[in-house]
Parts: sequence; structure tokens; C-alpha cells
Amino acid sequence: MLEQAKVNISFEFRQVRERTEAICENLSAEDCNLQAMPDTSPLKWHLAHTTWFFETFILKPFSQQYRVFDASFQVLFNSYYNGIGKQHPRPQRHLLSRPGLPEVMDYRCHVNRAMTALLEGSQHPQQREIVRRLELGLNHEQQHQELMLTDLKFNFAANPLAPAYRQDPLPEAVPADSGFEFYAGGLVEIGQTEDEGFGFDNEQPSHKTWLEPFALARGLVTTGDYKAFIADGGYRRPELWLSDGWATVQAENWTQPLYWDLEADEASVFTLHGRQPLRDDHPVCHLSYFEADAYARWKGARLPTEEEWEHAARLSIGSGSQADAGARRAALQPVGSEPRKGLQDLFGQVWQWTSSAYRAYPRYQPAPGALGEYNGKFMCNQFVLRGSSCATAAGHSRSSYRNFFYAPDRWQFTGLRLARDAMPGPD
Amino acid sequence: MLEQAKVNISFEFRQVRERTEAICENLSAEDCNLQAMPDTSPLKWHLAHTTWFFETFILKPFSQQYRVFDASFQVLFNSYYNGIGKQHPRPQRHLLSRPGLPEVMDYRCHVNRAMTALLEGSQHPQQREIVRRLELGLNHEQQHQELMLTDLKFNFAANPLAPAYRQDPLPEAVPADSGFEFYAGGLVEIGQTEDEGFGFDNEQPSHKTWLEPFALARGLVTTGDYKAFIADGGYRRPELWLSDGWATVQAENWTQPLYWDLEADEASVFTLHGRQPLRDDHPVCHLSYFEADAYARWKGARLPTEEEWEHAARLSIGSGSQADAGARRAALQPVGSEPRKGLQDLFGQVWQWTSSAYRAYPRYQPAPGALGEYNGKFMCNQFVLRGSSCATAAGHSRSSYRNFFYAPDRWQFTGLRLARDAMPGPD
Amino acid sequence: MLEQAKVNISFEFRQVRERTEAICENLSAEDCNLQAMPDTSPLKWHLAHTTWFFETFILKPFSQQYRVFDASFQVLFNSYYNGIGKQHPRPQRHLLSRPGLPEVMDYRCHVNRAMTALLEGSQHPQQREIVRRLELGLNHEQQHQELMLTDLKFNFAANPLAPAYRQDPLPEAVPADSGFEFYAGGLVEIGQTEDEGFGFDNEQPSHKTWLEPFALARGLVTTGDYKAFIADGGYRRPELWLSDGWATVQAENWTQPLYWDLEADEASVFTLHGRQPLRDDHPVCHLSYFEADAYARWKGARLPTEEEWEHAARLSIGSGSQADAGARRAALQPVGSEPRKGLQDLFGQVWQWTSSAYRAYPRYQPAPGALGEYNGKFMCNQFVLRGSSCATAAGHSRSSYRNFFYAPDRWQFTGLRLARDAMPGPD
Amino acid sequence: MLEQAKVNISFEFRQVRERTEAICENLSAEDCNLQAMPDTSPLKWHLAHTTWFFETFILKPFSQQYRVFDASFQVLFNSYYNGIGKQHPRPQRHLLSRPGLPEVMDYRCHVNRAMTALLEGSQHPQQREIVRRLELGLNHEQQHQELMLTDLKFNFAANPLAPAYRQDPLPEAVPADSGFEFYAGGLVEIGQTEDEGFGFDNEQPSHKTWLEPFALARGLVTTGDYKAFIADGGYRRPELWLSDGWATVQAENWTQPLYWDLEADEASVFTLHGRQPLRDDHPVCHLSYFEADAYARWKGARLPTEEEWEHAARLSIGSGSQADAGARRAALQPVGSEPRKGLQDLFGQVWQWTSSAYRAYPRYQPAPGALGEYNGKFMCNQFVLRGSSCATAAGHSRSSYRNFFYAPDRWQFTGLRLARDAMPGPD
Repeated sequence: MLEQAKVNISFEFRQVRERTEAICENLSAEDCNLQAMPDTSPLKWHLAHTTWFFETFILKPFSQQYRVFDASFQVLFNSYYNGIGKQHPRPQRHLLSRPGLPEVMDYRCHVNRAMTALLEGSQHPQQREIVRRLELGLNHEQQHQELMLTDLKFNFAANPLAPAYRQDPLPEAVPADSGFEFYAGGLVEIGQTEDEGFGFDNEQPSHKTWLEPFALARGLVTTGDYKAFIADGGYRRPELWLSDGWATVQAENWTQPLYWDLEADEASVFTLHGRQPLRDDHPVCHLSYFEADAYARWKGARLPTEEEWEHAARLSIGSGSQADAGARRAALQPVGSEPRKGLQDLFGQVWQWTSSAYRAYPRYQPAPGALGEYNGKFMCNQFVLRGSSCATAAGHSRSSYRNFFYAPDRWQFTGLRLARDAMPGPD
Repeated sequence: MLEQAKVNISFEFRQVRERTEAICENLSAEDCNLQAMPDTSPLKWHLAHTTWFFETFILKPFSQQYRVFDASFQVLFNSYYNGIGKQHPRPQRHLLSRPGLPEVMDYRCHVNRAMTALLEGSQHPQQREIVRRLELGLNHEQQHQELMLTDLKFNFAANPLAPAYRQDPLPEAVPADSGFEFYAGGLVEIGQTEDEGFGFDNEQPSHKTWLEPFALARGLVTTGDYKAFIADGGYRRPELWLSDGWATVQAENWTQPLYWDLEADEASVFTLHGRQPLRDDHPVCHLSYFEADAYARWKGARLPTEEEWEHAARLSIGSGSQADAGARRAALQPVGSEPRKGLQDLFGQVWQWTSSAYRAYPRYQPAPGALGEYNGKFMCNQFVLRGSSCATAAGHSRSSYRNFFYAPDRWQFTGLRLARDAMPGPD
Repeated sequence: MLEQAKVNISFEFRQVRERTEAICENLSAEDCNLQAMPDTSPLKWHLAHTTWFFETFILKPFSQQYRVFDASFQVLFNSYYNGIGKQHPRPQRHLLSRPGLPEVMDYRCHVNRAMTALLEGSQHPQQREIVRRLELGLNHEQQHQELMLTDLKFNFAANPLAPAYRQDPLPEAVPADSGFEFYAGGLVEIGQTEDEGFGFDNEQPSHKTWLEPFALARGLVTTGDYKAFIADGGYRRPELWLSDGWATVQAENWTQPLYWDLEADEASVFTLHGRQPLRDDHPVCHLSYFEADAYARWKGARLPTEEEWEHAARLSIGSGSQADAGARRAALQPVGSEPRKGLQDLFGQVWQWTSSAYRAYPRYQPAPGALGEYNGKFMCNQFVLRGSSCATAAGHSRSSYRNFFYAPDRWQFTGLRLARDAMPGPD
Repeated sequence: MLEQAKVNISFEFRQVRERTEAICENLSAEDCNLQAMPDTSPLKWHLAHTTWFFETFILKPFSQQYRVFDASFQVLFNSYYNGIGKQHPRPQRHLLSRPGLPEVMDYRCHVNRAMTALLEGSQHPQQREIVRRLELGLNHEQQHQELMLTDLKFNFAANPLAPAYRQDPLPEAVPADSGFEFYAGGLVEIGQTEDEGFGFDNEQPSHKTWLEPFALARGLVTTGDYKAFIADGGYRRPELWLSDGWATVQAENWTQPLYWDLEADEASVFTLHGRQPLRDDHPVCHLSYFEADAYARWKGARLPTEEEWEHAARLSIGSGSQADAGARRAALQPVGSEPRKGLQDLFGQVWQWTSSAYRAYPRYQPAPGALGEYNGKFMCNQFVLRGSSCATAAGHSRSSYRNFFYAPDRWQFTGLRLARDAMPGPD
């Protein structure tokens, strides 16, 4: 690797690592140790676990001079890698007042120094594998950056004081275009090809799939749209719900999305800016799969499959390109007789539930060893979400990206885009 | 409808109904009211619910002279049709000592008489819809015939006396061929076409799908095969399991399939014939999806997708033909250079887990009204099983049939057939 | 033992045994196998367990020629005697469709014959111990006779058809006298003395206790009284409840006694006669300790201690005498200057919660061996009830009797009588 | 009130308050926000709640110029006073990262200043009630001082790093005398009399009770004693346990006291000094009522009643005197013919379980208003402990003190002293 490449990669490493710490800037050590449900980890734990990832998968195997910071961290900050060994129980992460936040920050420094030395040092015989794992580690850390925000939001929401994490002005919503874009379908390629840069193993291999003609809504479903569903008895009509969904609605007494309060004088929603008035023109957010599915049924539409979504997204933004929040208005239009408005908000607003169960692509092979546990073992009982959200790290969005959560999960920034069957067109 | 057709259909109705009652022939009223877990219903409840189905969906809407047997049964024996109204809670079905078994048998007679009168009477203006619902009702009752056996088995297994339901000789296992059959894949048609006779709405519509080349094991995985997995630490090695599967293994302390007892001096298994020695040459049975998946991974293979299974089954037994236990050795061979042995035990032994999440086929439309709840609302978090089992009613098996259960479920007659990726062949 | 004594004792044995069977006379085998919660056993189980008691504690140790009916029953029908061995799990008693009801009746006959032979046969070297255990066994069976009725009531109440067990006319309530009787207290004797006939070990030994002056209500609290408590917000006012009681009210959403339905057009209550209009003049029944305690607090009164109750009862009905439902109006008056009306309904209506935690009397010694488990090991976290109920077997009531249940239990025939502190009188 | 009295009382107030803060001296904000089970509150919450007590019950009602620190604290730091209003749910106290520890310390200062002004200011018309409540508030805070240590210990024990709270040398155990002291019993006075200084309402009123002759062990049961019980199969023999106790042993898989580790190479115990070798001569600690009761039964002894304990303690240390850890060797001997060694370790080592259910003394009256919730509403399903522990605040021990916990609770410093029945002596 050339010296410049080393400098670049080391710079990128530091940038991602600093961004993680910046998230905690205005938080106290107590804030960083909250865990309001087993699914949400303390931010301190995220800070340590992302560090553990580099220590475990790069420094320990590849750096001879590396000295382990604290041997007990191997268990404490292992998330779910059985191949590495035991794990501190997830629901008890908030019980780790020791190591304290300052010690965890020291841990980050210690690992950062060792990583920088490794990355900027003389050529390593396994340089290629190191860079591959580094890239994985940085993308892993970016995933945790989003989780830190979703977890913090959930944890703060459990405090009756409704603390505000952010003080900057609320983002404006861009009014969504109405109507649908049509796609002819046919035999298409889905999944990441080898020349498309970094991707997780679950996005691969690229493979053929057959799509019937379909249509996708140009815009996301909004808060206003969803209020109409509620007003029409959406949460009281079993015929709109999957059987498991209806059971969840009744068991959990759901009457509205997570964080909403429609009972107060002014309808409001808990946000990272504290409690705020509910705005009709924002994309609806914090829906479970069950709610997204029920809304679509009520609307006489359906959720897209993940293949439909990816195919349309590739047509909208061009194959292989990185898709960031800035690219919200796609220049490239799908083929058609009339000028098309294109799909809006594919990325950067809310993750979009698809009707696709999360499963292995044909001929999928997880990586060997413990890193093979990254994605493959979760391919069961979860649903794929596509796009990205307002909390996704910059540079972390692409058409082939597969996010996944359980059907009842609502604490992520999750919404939906409608789909419909279409007739074969003149094309 | 011609008189002969009326007689035929009425005869078929009585035959299916009598078969249901024959299942309970040697059981006491107490036996018929057992419910060892919420998933298993008392046999008396099955007897009543299948009757309720004809009363609710045919007699009430189409027979003017029909007199309801007991108005309270509308709620008591409604399984899950919210479109019909409330349901007696499933876990409390065993609390219905009233109506007693004799009264439920009277209910069956009452409905049978009214159905016969309707079927054999003068032409009805909605004859077509009546016959369509009759066909659904009979297939519905056949599904419950299998459930009665699986539920009874589970309920009896909870009794330390291990009662034997059947006294006839145990069936012999036919040694399975080894090896795999290869399939070239490509763009294939899956799902039931309109000329293939009765099918549930979830088998339709027929649609295209793309398959990569694959191979299917000729025989089912056997008890002996599975013992090797256990002996190799299968239940103690997390790397073999899906994450949710491993969590289940630990929470439930699973160390073997349901009904097995490997700890006793002689390994045994609870069956409808009581406790019996475990036979290595029988197909392994009563596995959850998690166990089937883990076994396949341990073997370096995988589960087939439901499309692979159906495609191969259609090639083996010919499109559209009814596939019964008698047809175990398929005459029709898949295309290939060498004489092929064909797939064995597609039907009549054990349901075969596929890796496919249960979901709607493209352009699937549930029936209108309450009958639309039959299948569609369960398309979430379940996995498709293909084939049929030793407990499936005669005439109730076909290549397009989609059975479905949750990943941890083990009380059905469920096993597996291995699949592998294959290289494109010379064909 | 003289011949006549043998005949008498054998006659008494048969009488108690027949009474148990008479309870099931109009019930089906399905009725007799219901278990709507772990606390309520199927009636068939009661029929078997009471038989098991004689087999285990008399026939097996003392009858040489006795042949065990079925060896598996030792575990199946053992309630809680660890000294005898394992027990079939209580919540799974309803899963025993085998042995069926006819087989259990055969078991009863088998044991009855053997018992009769033993009782009427030649003098046994351990005759004294046999008679002691026989007496215990008969009292044990009488306790189960009451449990059969309370369990059946609870089990039937779970059926939406609200089956009626009894067809005979409802008993009339006798209007209760108002006002309180006063007692001077002092150093009194509590507990059964050796000359008072049969008693359970927990009623002994007789011992001194000091009582401050107190007063007991002449009558029981009625349904009408309790409705006033509810109307005054009784179930919504935490200040009226013990902390654990209030937690239970909220967790269980209690708003009225068990079996009541105040929401219907006509207030009703589920009874052994089916659903019946609620009668203001009946004693309030099916209260938990928490509700009895809250009512008393609301009324500015309190529950009596068990010593106060026993002391007053002994003064009312005379020391040591058997107290039966017939003796509802006590002739014997407590000492006082004015003619006293006496305490009503001490026995035969509802068990009366006392404020006394169930515990060992000073110098209490449980019997040696497994029979020592009869009472002693339950002396923790339960409260003593005194008197007897409408479901108590004739001849099974006395002033020293200690019944006991957990504070939240409501399925027994439980009500209350108020108490107050009193000033020392002129006596 | 004289000026000197004002100064004294104000000094005492500051002393108690400072002692509370000193407990947290070496802890981080994260340490102070731990809550490992619903029963254990974060130390920060204790710091705030004890402050809330003075604000709610003294400053708000009696200080005109008092300005509430933060209105939301009324709910956040209310423990269980329904008379004051709603409470933040106990299991969610650890979710209150806001207010942070510094803000809670400000709250303490704010209330301390206002209290000092009130106490040192000009005579208040309700001075008497203020002083009464102040005394209650200080004793309340002392109770929380002990809870802070027990809660912290439990919270730290959940951390695999086993943090040490204290660095000072471990206390030495003083070898206990063996043998029993005998007491003649009779009609004795129990409970606090009006001239005995401060006491909680549950210690009153003083009343007569009758005691049979009994004996109390001179010393506490030790770790070594208890190891013999374990070695003799104590945790595997149902005949030694109360029924509820045995159910708990099995449900919780108890095999040893809380914090013990007998499986390691060297038997150890988690303490506030971190993990330490187990010392045979220490009093056994962290036993539930169930374990204490089972041990006593195994030993052929029993637990004392609370009245026996108090009577003996009053004879040992003199009626009414404050009993502190310093007074471990009682000078005053019970009456008897031989010189007696007296009872050791009545106070200052471990709380001693009695067999007495926690209940109201005869004629007990809770205080009016919300303060009446302090003790009375908990008189159900708990057991009385007597004495005090190594964690009890100085000056907070006395013969009439009644501590109370549920039978399965083990996280307090709880042990036992044996009792026996005795024959009436020559006295």
C-alpha cells in the first residue's frame, strides 16, 4: 500500500471514530449508561463495543506488539459472537457502572493509537485482510452510530422529563410528490456486484430474480396520511392486520405509533429535540412492520418486496452509486413515455419496511470464523428494510443495503413507501 | 347439477365427515377434551369446529330452512374468524366440558342432515358458490383430521402413563436411497394453475420464478442420521444454529427431538402406538425449523426453498397429479443422462421444512369476507413445509400444497430433506 | 375394639366415602376432569386422591393382604407429600384423561373393600394407629368434599354457558342482627384440648393468650353492605388497602368480588345454581383477604384475630361442642348484664377471614413422617379463616378449626365478620 | 424552644444529612444510578427521596417562604405515598439519568438551607409537629442509609468485575459463646412505652402478651454452622423447608446464601470489600426467612417469636436504653441461679429473622394522613426481623425496633439466632 493510501485510510478511521464520540458530547456519564429495554444498549456500551471490534478482529490477530487494555472486556463488550466466547448478558449492560465512561474513553484512545500505528506502520503481510476488516469495522461503527441515536431516543423517552438531546432547529419536511412510478419488471439483477465497493455479505451475491410489473409511490407515507388511518379506526379493525400483528396490538394496547401522544390537547411526538408538535408533512416514523402492513392494506396497496425496491432504486439513482441524503431528488428517470418525477426520499428520511422476510440470497456464504456471525445467523423471523434514515451516517446508504428488524420493533426510524401491482405496459 | 353429481358430492361429504368421527372411535370423552398446550385443541373442539364451518359458511347464508343448533356455538367454535365475530379464547378450549361429547355428536348429525338436504335438494341459485365452499369445507376438515392426530399425540404425551392410541402393527420403514438428484433450474412456473383442481388460495396464482441449479436429496433425513448430529454435539454448538434457534435451545433445554428419550437404557420415542424403541431407519420426525436448519448446516448442506421443492416434485410425479402416499416411488424421472432413481417420500412420511418464509405469492388475493382470513393473515413469521405426512388424509397431498408453522413448532409430523447448490450442468 | 365399634366405624367410613361420590352424581366425566387454574383440581383427581390417602397411609403400611390397585397412582395422586415421593405436577392434573373416571371409581371400590375388610376384620396389633389415621382420612376427605364444590364452581364459571350444578331451590338468607357483642378479654385458653374429640394438629396444643377487650359483629357482612363499599369507590381508593392488596387490585383489575357482574342490566352472581340475581341480604362471599381487610378499614372497624374469634365462639356455643349449620342461633349467651342476642352465622354460611397470619401455636409439633406435612409446612404467608361455609361437610365445624388461604385467594366461600377494639367493661 | 435546643436539633439534622452524602463519597455518578432489581433503588434516588421527605412533610406544609426546587420531583421521588399522589414506577428509577447527580446534590443543599432556616428561625406555631416530623425524617434517612449500603452491594454484585466499595481492613469476628439462655416467660409487656424516646408507630402501643418458657441462643448462627447444613444436604431435603420455601429453592435454584460461591477453589463471598474468602467465624448473613427457618428445623430448634426476642433483649440490656453496636456484651444478666453469659450480638451484626408475621400490635393506630402509610400498609406477608446489622446507622438500634421483609428476601444483612421451647424453671 502506498504511503498516501495509508494516510487516507488512517484519516478515515479517525474520522469515523471521532464522529462516534461526538454523539456523546453533550451527554453525562449517567445518560450514557441508560438502558430502557434489553434491545437498547447504553451509549457507553456502544462506545466500548465498537472499540472491542477493532481490538478483537484486527489488533489481537494481526498486531504483535498490541497489549490488551483489559482482559475482562473480551466478555463485557462482546455483543453476540459465540465464536469469540461468552457474552455479558444483554439485558444487564446497564449494570456496568464499572468500567466508567472515562475508562471507556481511555480504552478508545488505547485502541485508536494501536490501530493508527498498525495502519500507518510498515507493510503487513496480511495487509489485504486487515484493510478488509478495517472497512467492515468502520461500517460496523457507522451502524452503531445510528443505533446510539435510536437507543438514546428510546432511553430518554422513558424519562417523564422528556429531555431534549438536540437544541438545533428542527428540520423542515419537503412536501412529497403524490402518485406512483411504474416498472415493467422482468428478469432483473438484484444484490451487490463485485465492482460496487463495500457491502455487507448479506447484500451478496448479485443474482437474477423475476419481477412482475409493479408501481412504487413517489413519496413516503406521511404523518398526516397515517392520522387518517387512525381516525378511520385503524387500530380497532382486525381485518386490516396480520394475525400476529393484531395479537400485538391487543397485547400492547397500541393505538398510535411509538412516541406519539394524540390524547394531549395538542398532538405531539417525542423526538431528539424533546417533545414537539406533530407535523402532518413529516414522513410517518417509528412504525412496526405490523403497522406499516396494516396501513398499506387499509390503503388498498401493499408493501414493496425488497427486490422491487432495489430495482426501482437502481433505476432512480444509477447502478452502484452511493446514495446519500443529498441525493434525495433523483435525476435519473425510469424509462417511460412521459417525463417522470422519480422516487423521492429513498434515503435519509426513514427506513422503509418491505414485505420480504430477511433471508439468504441464493448461494450466500457467510464469512469464515466468528465474523460469519455478523449477518447470517439472524436470517430468521425478521423483515428487510430498505433505504436509510435521518440518523444514518453519511456515506452509509446504498441501493443494495439490507437493514432488518423484527415485525413488532418500533424504536428505529422506520416508515414506509407504498407499492401496487401493475399491468404489463406497452414497453 | 345433474342428479348423479349431487349424489357423488353428497357421498364425498359423508365420507369425509365419517372419517373425522372414526378418529375418535376408541377414545373417551375425557380423552377428547384434553388440551396440553394452547396450540393443541381438544378433539371435541375439532369435531365441533369443522361442523361450525359448514354451518357458518354454507347453511346460514344459503339454506333458508336451516335452524341453528345452538346460538352460543357461534362464539365457542369460531377458531379465528374476526369477520364472523368473537371467539372463545384458544387456551381455554379445554374448559368447555359443556357442551359434552354426546351433544357435539348431535351437532354433527344436525348439520350433516341439513347439508345433505341442501346438497341433494333442488338446484340452488348459488349452487356454484355452495360447491366451492363445500370443497373448501371438506379440505378444511381433512386438515383438522391431521391436527386431531398431532394434537392427540401431544396431549397423550403429557400423561406419564404414555397411553397408546393405536394397537395395529407399527409401519415398516423403507430404506432410503442415498445421493442427490440434480436440477438445472432457470425460469420456472410455481404455484397452482387453474386446471389443477382444488387448491387453497395460498397456492395461487401460478407465477414465474428464477432458480439457480440445485440438487435435492433422494431420501429424507433419518433418525439414524440425526443421532449422529446429536452425538457430534449438535445441541451444544452455537455455530450450527440460527441466533433465534440457539436462544430457543437454551431457553427450552432442548437436547433431542420432541418425544425422544435418549437417556433411558433403550432409546425410545413416544408415538401414537405408545412408547416405542427408536428405529434408525425411520425418517426423523418432530423437528422444529431450527433443528432442521441446524442439521442441514452441520451436514454442509441446506434446506430447499419451497420453489425448488415444488419444481422437483412436479418433475418427479408429473404436473398436477394428486400425490398420495401410495405414489411414494415416483415413476417419472427428472431429465438427465443417467437413469435416475427419483425422489422418494415426497409425500406420506413427514412434512419437509423449507427455508422459505411463508408469504403471499405475487398478485395473491385472499377471498372476500371472513373466508379471506383462512390463509392470508398468517403470512408472517412462519415457514413453509412441503409434501405431506403419515397423518395427512388420503387425497390431500399435492405438489403445490403449502403447509406452514412457526420456527419453534415441533408437534407436527415434521422432518427434512437436504438440498445443495449445484453447478450448471451440460443440459 | 368391640364388634359394635367396628361396625360403627366401618359404617362411618362408607358414609363419608359415599357422600364424596354423591357430589359427582349429575356430572359427566368431562365435567369431572376440568381444571380452570392450577389451584383447582379436577373432581376426578379429588376422587382418586382421597382414595390414595387411605391406600398410602393405612392399607400399604398395615394390611398384609392388600394388593396395590395401580403402582403408577402413587405419583399421580400424591398431592404434596414429599415424604411419600414424587408428585404429578399440580397444574397438569387435567391432562390425566387416563385413568378415566370409571377406572377411578373402580379404584375407590377396590380400596373401600380392602378398608372394610381391615376395619371389620380381626383385631390388628396397631389398631389404635389405624383408627387414628382413619379419622384423619375421613376428615381429610370431608375437606376435599368442600374443595370439590369450590373447584367445580370455579371451573364451571370459566364456561361462557354458565352451567348450573344444582337445580334445587336457592337457600333463603336469614336477616342478620345488627350491632356488636362485647368481650372483656384477659388471659384466655385458645386451641383444642385433648378431651374435645378429633382435631387437626394445627389446632393444638391448647395454650394461653392475652386478649384486650374487644367486640364482634353479631352478623356477617352482607352483599348489600359490600355494595355500599363499592359505590363509595372502594376499589379505587388506595388508602383503604394494604400495599400488597392495592397492587393486586391494579394488576388483576378487580372492581368487585369474584363471580359478581355489576355491569349487566341486573346485577348478578355466578353460583352453583348458575347465574343468579345478586341478593342484598346474603352474606358477601368470595372475597380475598385484601378485600375483607379493605372493607373493614372503610367501615372504621377491623378483622378479628383468630384468638378473638375462637374465644367468642366458645362463649357462644359452649366449649368443645361440635358446631354445625343447624346451630346457627346460639342459645348460650356470653356473660353480661343485659340479655344478649349472641353471634349469628359463626358456621355454615361463609368462612370468616381473620387478621391472623397462619402460624404454629406455641409448642406445636407436626406428626412424625409424611403425615407431618399435612399442615405444618404451610404455616407461611397465609391467613387464618374461622367458622365454616355452606359447602362444609356436616359434622366438620368446630370453634377451634383453622382454615387457611393466601391473601389474594377468592375461590373459596370466604366472607367476613367485623371486629372492634373495646373499652374494659364493668365486669 | 430554647436557642440551645434549636442549635442542637439543627446540628443533628446536618450530621445525619452529611452522613448520607458520605456514603457516596467514593462513587461515580454511574455507580449512584445502578438498579439491579426493582427492590434496589439507585443511590441517587435515595439521596433525592430522603430530601423529598423533608420538603414534602415539613417545608411545604410549614414554611411559608419555601420555594419548591423542582415541581416534577414530587412524583419522581415519591416512594409509595398515595396520599401525596402519583409515583414514578419503582422498577424504572434507574432510567432517571436526569436529574443528574450534581442536580440532586443541589436539591439536597436547597432543602438543607431551607430546613436550617426553619429550625433555627423564630418559634413556629406548629413547632411541636415540626420537631416530631423532623425526628421521623431523620430516622427515615437513617433507614435509607442502611438501604443504600444493601442496595449498592446488590448492584455491585451484578457486575462481573466485583467492584470493592470499601478499602479499609475487614472487621474481625468475635467468637460467639455457645449455649442458650433460659427465660421463664409469663405475662410480659412488649412494645415501646411513651417514655422510651423516638420509635416508629409500628413499635407501639406497649401491650401485654403471654410467653411460655423459652430459651435463646447466646450467639448468632455462623457461616461455619451454616456450611454444615449445606453439607448435610440442606438445600436438597424438602422435609426441612416450608412449602413456599421449597418452591422458592427449586424455582431459584438456591444452593447457598446470596453472594456465596462455594464452587470456586476457595469458598468466597461478595462483600462491600469486593470478593473475600468465606470466614467460618462470621455470623451467617444474607439468608432469606425460608433459609433461616430451614436451618433452625435442621438443628432441631426454631426461630424465636418477636415477643421472645424483645423480652430477652430488654432483660439483657435494660429496658428502654438505646442499644448500639458498642453494647454488644450486655452487662445486665437475666435472673437466674447461676451467673449468666448473656446474649451476644443482639445488635450491630445481622438482623435476626423471627417467626412472627409482621402485623399490627393490639390497638395500633397509624398516623393520620400520608404519613400513616409509613408502616401500616405493609403489615401483610412479611416477617419481623429484630436487632440491627453492621450497616445500621449509629443510634438507630433498640429492643423494640421492628424491621420487616418478605420471606424470600436476601439482600439485606439478615441472619438468625436460634430459639427453643423450655420447661418451666424453679423460679
